[in-house]
Order: sequence, then structure tokens, then C-alpha cells
Amino acid sequence: MDNNNELHIIPHNHKTCVDDRNQLNGHRSLVIWFTGLSGSGKSTLANMLEQHLHDKGIRTFILDGDNVRKGLNKDLDFSDEGRKENIRRIGEVAKLMTEAGLVVIAAFVSPFEEERQKLRSLLGDDVFVEVFVDTPLEVCESRDTKGLYKKARKGEIAHFTGISSPFEPPLHPDVHILTTEETPEKSLERILDTMWPKLACNKG
Amino acid sequence: MDNNNELHIIPHNHKTCVDDRNQLNGHRSLVIWFTGLSGSGKSTLANMLEQHLHDKGIRTFILDGDNVRKGLNKDLDFSDEGRKENIRRIGEVAKLMTEAGLVVIAAFVSPFEEERQKLRSLLGDDVFVEVFVDTPLEVCESRDTKGLYKKARKGEIAHFTGISSPFEPPLHPDVHILTTEETPEKSLERILDTMWPKLACNKG
Repeated sequence: MDNNNELHIIPHNHKTCVDDRNQLNGHRSLVIWFTGLSGSGKSTLANMLEQHLHDKGIRTFILDGDNVRKGLNKDLDFSDEGRKENIRRIGEVAKLMTEAGLVVIAAFVSPFEEERQKLRSLLGDDVFVEVFVDTPLEVCESRDTKGLYKKARKGEIAHFTGISSPFEPPLHPDVHILTTEETPEKSLERILDTMWPKLACNKG
Repeated sequence: MDNNNELHIIPHNHKTCVDDRNQLNGHRSLVIWFTGLSGSGKSTLANMLEQHLHDKGIRTFILDGDNVRKGLNKDLDFSDEGRKENIRRIGEVAKLMTEAGLVVIAAFVSPFEEERQKLRSLLGDDVFVEVFVDTPLEVCESRDTKGLYKKARKGEIAHFTGISSPFEPPLHPDVHILTTEETPEKSLERILDTMWPKLACNKG
């Protein structure tokens, strides 16, 4: 708005902001961040959650490896440094999307506690909801839907979380899901219970 | 959805997609891309446009130097390479945001024709609307709202578009605005006339 005088127009002091967008949408912005091993069930839960929220008229978007690694982050490798920069950029995109009024659902292995802590401090406690999809490695590996564990065991994939790179379990996740002990429907219910109060527009 | 069988849930074949989001919002996604010299009036027009659209219930978001250079792209410099990577990432974020159902309003000097052509081919002709905010250099420099031209003339800022780095005028902008020849209100009207048919949900 810095050129108003020069353009001889009536100053528009009001810029559209996140509160205006939340008001229009009828809900606040959030980031629901799914972390867990490859094959743990993050994408399944993320898609169930999105479908449920969308059906209720909530504005959602899923960020995952499919849409991020092929576009924005296609220049990054899977080294520790590449993965940290991957998560940093995703955090910044998620932040922009929350400013745009969306409920962002992110599904990434995101194995490092430090990176997840950075996300929480970037996005804020009110916005960031960490969901730990906790499935034992042997279960993930036995599924091996994408054949990645097999390749990792053969050494064909370097830095593979759980095999050749560590997964640091979240210390204080907002929701801790033991996928071998409850149904996805029950997990979804617990995620919704946790996020619902944060979604309400009149929360203050 | 690749772990459905393993999780013993009913398969959800439907993933929420851009068409679902457009249906919920009542409009299609677009990117309105403002290009022009520093001080040309891009931000003023971008803010007027957003306010107008928001008041009509259209889901909008502004991407500009303020929110991109301080976060996602804070690792980039202002060299030609840094500026190209800046625009590439912004294009990818804009693409994700259009998939999320938004009308993205981008205001960047974006001086290189090749980069703008890449944006058009990334986003598609139906989505990308290029608005050339065409203000003579001497007018921008005489305004010099941020004092940047003065610094650039003194050599304190390298690669400053118009002074020490070229601005390549768009060859085929969707809207060409000569700010010294029409009011911002008239410019806004012409932008709206161009984008309106592209916004309609029933366009096919």
C-alpha cells in the first residue's frame, strides 16, 4: 500500500488478513502434521481426515511427498541436510497456507525431533497439531507397499528411515496413534477430538 | 491410500481434489501474476484486487516479497540465479495453492521473460493471468517509496532491476496496465473483466 499517494487513490488501510479469511471460511487455520515411518499409515489417515473435514465444508489441503518432492523440493536429495531443508520449506509453505485460511494436513516421515520442534515454534502451539503414527518397524516392513524396505535392506536406497537412518519418536505428540491397537476410524475420532476446539472461530 | 488393505478399512477410492475444493468455494483457482518495476504499483493493485475479491466471498491469498523472502526463500540472494530460484519456488507454491482452491495474487518484479514463460507453462493458460504493471522507470524512481532507487544509484544495491539489472517487458501479457494513463480503479476493472470468465465454476 506504499504507493497510494502517488497513484492518487483513496488509501485502503485494510489489508485482507488471516482473521478475515477464517471468518469467511467459518473456521480457523491449522496444521495437522503426521509423522511416522514409511508404511505406517500416515497417508491413509491423512486422506480419511481430509475427506471428513471437506464433507463438513472445511477448507483443507494435503501436503505430502507426492506433491512436494516432485515440484517445490525436486532440487533436494535425501541426505540429512536435504531432508532438513525439505521439512523447513514444507513448514514455510504450511505457514503461508494457514495465513491463507486453510487446514493443512501434512504427511511426512519427518524423523528428526529438532525439525518437528522448529515446525512447532514456526507455526505456534495453537496451530501445530503433531500426530505420531506409531507402527512397529516390522509391521511397516512386512507391508512394504512401495517395495522401499526391500531396496533399503539391499542398500539400494541410502538414508532410509528405520533401516539406515534413525527415526526419533516425538516426545510430546498431540495425538499418539498405535495403529496395531486401534482402528483407523477410532484414530480419526481421536484426531478430530484434539483439533476441534482449535478449529472454532470464536475461540478468542 | 496405499495401505488400505493392511489397515483393514473400507477402501476410500476418492481423494479430495481441486474440483471438489472449487465446488465448495464456488469458483475456480487462478494465479493473477503482477510483474513490473519496483514502485510501479503492483502491491497497490494486488491489495485492491484481493479486497474486492474477498468481499465477494472468493478465497484469495497474496504472495509477495514480504511473506516469501522472509520465510521460504530467506536462503536466496538477489543474483540472477537467486532470483530465478525465487520465482521457481513461488511458482511451485502458487501451484500448490491453486490445487488447494485459492485465487493466488502474486506481486513480484519478476523481470525475466523466460521465468514468466516457465510459470505459464507450469500453471497452465487457464490458470495463469499475467498483469504487466507498466510504469516508466523515471516515475518509479521519482516515487522511490522505499529509498531503493537512491541506494541502487549509489551502488549500494547490486542487481537492481531498471538500474543495474534488466527488466524484460512481457511479450503477451493478459492485461497491460499503463499506470500513468488510467486510474487504479479502471485498471482493477480491466483485470476483473479478464479473470472473471476464468473464475466461473461451470466453465467446462
